[in-house]
Amino acid sequence: MHWDLETEAPKNSIDTTSEVIGFFSEKTYELTNSKEFIESLRVLNANSSELSETDKRIVYLTSKEQSKLSKIAKDKYVEYNQLLSKAQNVWTEARQENDFEKFAPYLEKIITYQKNYTKLIGDKNHPYNVVLDDYEEEMTVAKLDPFFEGLKARIVPLLEKIKQTKQVDMSCLTKKYSIEKQKEYSKKIAAQLGFDFDSGLLKESAHPFTLNFNKYDVRMTTRYIEDLFSSSLFSTVHETGHALYEQNIGDNIYDTVLGTGVSLGIHESQSRFYENLVGKNKAFWLKNYKELQELFPENLDNTTVDEFYKAANFVAPSLIRVEADELTYSLHILVRYELEKEIFENDISVSELPKLWNDKYEKYLGITPDSDANGILQDVHWAAGLFGYFPTYALGSAYASQFFHYMNKDFDVNKSIEENELKPILGYLTKHIHQFGCLKKADNLVMDMCGEELNAQYYIDYLESKFSEIYDL
Amino acid sequence: MHWDLETEAPKNSIDTTSEVIGFFSEKTYELTNSKEFIESLRVLNANSSELSETDKRIVYLTSKEQSKLSKIAKDKYVEYNQLLSKAQNVWTEARQENDFEKFAPYLEKIITYQKNYTKLIGDKNHPYNVVLDDYEEEMTVAKLDPFFEGLKARIVPLLEKIKQTKQVDMSCLTKKYSIEKQKEYSKKIAAQLGFDFDSGLLKESAHPFTLNFNKYDVRMTTRYIEDLFSSSLFSTVHETGHALYEQNIGDNIYDTVLGTGVSLGIHESQSRFYENLVGKNKAFWLKNYKELQELFPENLDNTTVDEFYKAANFVAPSLIRVEADELTYSLHILVRYELEKEIFENDISVSELPKLWNDKYEKYLGITPDSDANGILQDVHWAAGLFGYFPTYALGSAYASQFFHYMNKDFDVNKSIEENELKPILGYLTKHIHQFGCLKKADNLVMDMCGEELNAQYYIDYLESKFSEIYDL
Repeated sequence: MHWDLETEAPKNSIDTTSEVIGFFSEKTYELTNSKEFIESLRVLNANSSELSETDKRIVYLTSKEQSKLSKIAKDKYVEYNQLLSKAQNVWTEARQENDFEKFAPYLEKIITYQKNYTKLIGDKNHPYNVVLDDYEEEMTVAKLDPFFEGLKARIVPLLEKIKQTKQVDMSCLTKKYSIEKQKEYSKKIAAQLGFDFDSGLLKESAHPFTLNFNKYDVRMTTRYIEDLFSSSLFSTVHETGHALYEQNIGDNIYDTVLGTGVSLGIHESQSRFYENLVGKNKAFWLKNYKELQELFPENLDNTTVDEFYKAANFVAPSLIRVEADELTYSLHILVRYELEKEIFENDISVSELPKLWNDKYEKYLGITPDSDANGILQDVHWAAGLFGYFPTYALGSAYASQFFHYMNKDFDVNKSIEENELKPILGYLTKHIHQFGCLKKADNLVMDMCGEELNAQYYIDYLESKFSEIYDL
Repeated sequence: MHWDLETEAPKNSIDTTSEVIGFFSEKTYELTNSKEFIESLRVLNANSSELSETDKRIVYLTSKEQSKLSKIAKDKYVEYNQLLSKAQNVWTEARQENDFEKFAPYLEKIITYQKNYTKLIGDKNHPYNVVLDDYEEEMTVAKLDPFFEGLKARIVPLLEKIKQTKQVDMSCLTKKYSIEKQKEYSKKIAAQLGFDFDSGLLKESAHPFTLNFNKYDVRMTTRYIEDLFSSSLFSTVHETGHALYEQNIGDNIYDTVLGTGVSLGIHESQSRFYENLVGKNKAFWLKNYKELQELFPENLDNTTVDEFYKAANFVAPSLIRVEADELTYSLHILVRYELEKEIFENDISVSELPKLWNDKYEKYLGITPDSDANGILQDVHWAAGLFGYFPTYALGSAYASQFFHYMNKDFDVNKSIEENELKPILGYLTKHIHQFGCLKKADNLVMDMCGEELNAQYYIDYLESKFSEIYDL
């Protein structure tokens, strides 16, 4: 139903379908908190030594989810879900009308619920850890603080330097590109990267996303903008990264709850890997640019591969996260991380948030939002109750660089890309990540592959080196 | 899931989705036969005098369905559904390979189940009545026999006469028509007839169909064949007829089990009304042909409206039901009606069926199938267990002509069509049929609208008059 609503449901059907979704979410709550379910989990946990590794992990994750859900009273749960549904509609209007006051009472209720939730679940070190764990198992403020500090210390000055130099020319991407040909190229590049169209679909939606029913049915969307070819191009490559993760889950677990990506951070590492380390890599275009030029001679005949590569990596501090370039993207996340942490730490009133938001944009990106619509109202996440979600975007980029580094110990990745040999890349990622689904914790995946845990150094080094070269620093 | 499977699901997802559908069909059986459900129905039936008319009808129809389902043991029900699922795959292969022997054992099992089912439910007059009632409430052999006899007596000789005359030229429909422009015209004509695209979709599938979740979400498909424009044109108009029925259900019942068309015969009357009495009506093209010509000047510039109208009504006995013209269509149904009746009446062995089939084609249409693939293997219905379903196709055509006759007592229908005033037609059908959903029985709808029950005379008269004129008889 989610897929249908986002890609093709007729306008007038939305209310009824939303009711049905509400019905199923209530049933899920009831089933998960039913006596039979709880008793089954108790017996399984009591006899866990007799379970296979796979079953142990299934029981562990299910018990954890059940335990979290059981702490919320059913009426509160249903009420909160109705609040979120309304809040998203109000947010849409508030953003259109640039009216933060309109959204503020909803945001306040959501924050109250979330803070109450962190109290009910409890974390001995930091309340924000509770919601972080919902999207990235065992992620904590203690791990994220040094991560974002490291980014801040080197990316903010790097951006300053870039702002002093001559800007690269990205006009080759903003000409009119035929939508039909964009569609053709999106399909072509997804298949080239390894997307299996017999086990998936590529359609369109307002905001690109990937959704998996199981490894044999992985659906992704992109969006086509006539005068911004980079939008469909890199959205498709990004979503293909997500989709490849899901399509390459092991057959041994694909039809269990373990048969999906383990965490949002690891998931985002796969999409960022393909988007930035393959799709925005010069090596890729050295091989593939000629074909692209032949498809769009009217737009690219007078653009060299070097100019195209630089245009694709154009850097400029901007107000909107989803339109940000690779370098400044993490600074948008830094703003949200610091704000969310403060919300859970202190008694910040909702009315203070727009100013805090704007101050941080000025501090880290050097620009102040001209409106709340382009500031604190830009993301749907808070309206959807998704606190603790944003950091996974930055984690994904960092993981991607770290994995690229270790992949190079197996084979020369750039050489492979330049020769259009993309199978070894997918093979490596499948071997070390995809096949396991949720069987291994994110931390263990990283440790087993790299021999060390999350290390932001690779990411920062990569950004410095890539953008120093592009901008002749 | 059915919509998804038919319109876009990736190939490899079919097995898993079929399993899920199987799961839900089992759950439906369990819920419908649960103690709580049966007890609820018992209490409601015992106190039916306190119920509103709407609730009475809901309880009546639900009890009837429950009672039918309760007569089948759960293991038999599950086993039979698995058989049907397999049988449809085997049928697909058997048809491709023209191998009736391959399909025969499955057909035999399905017939055995169906005959056993008719015994379990029971009908004092004729076993075939049991399955007829599944698709057309209270339809019986006693009503259908004279109906088909009437058709046979006058349509078979009419066809003979047409075969003796000069054939009309249909070559204007078999030129190459741009698929993009066909799509544009399908959308245009559906909207023109009254289809609300805010409450529905038009997509493509191998076999056109219409499916409704509720009146605000009615989805139909058509199929585009480059060198057979009449395929998409009349499929779209046909499905629009089905869709208009569903989109115009009353708001008072739309979200109950009554919120859908009452029977297959009445449903088909709506699709046939639009397909034949509007879409293949000269009055419609007198007004609309110029626009069509302007969209396809390369194909229609040298074709007059009269030639186009005659081409659209080209008559020729053919082997395949779904490709049949308006006149011979009912004879295809006659063959199936007589065969099905005999199957339920007598102990015909499955191996005799192909010959019986071919003999009837020779007798009524004057042609003998060149293969079982083009004969008894052409329809999926028996593989899907749909015995008793075919007669509703012919009933639909007959009802359509009867309704057209009575509509003319309110206003001059052809004049309205010629003036492109299609709203009075939809208004009449909504007032007398659509709004009621399943609230009124088919028989009552017909009686209340016409003051008489099903009367095939209007249909036969219409066919004789229309085709005598086209063929100058």
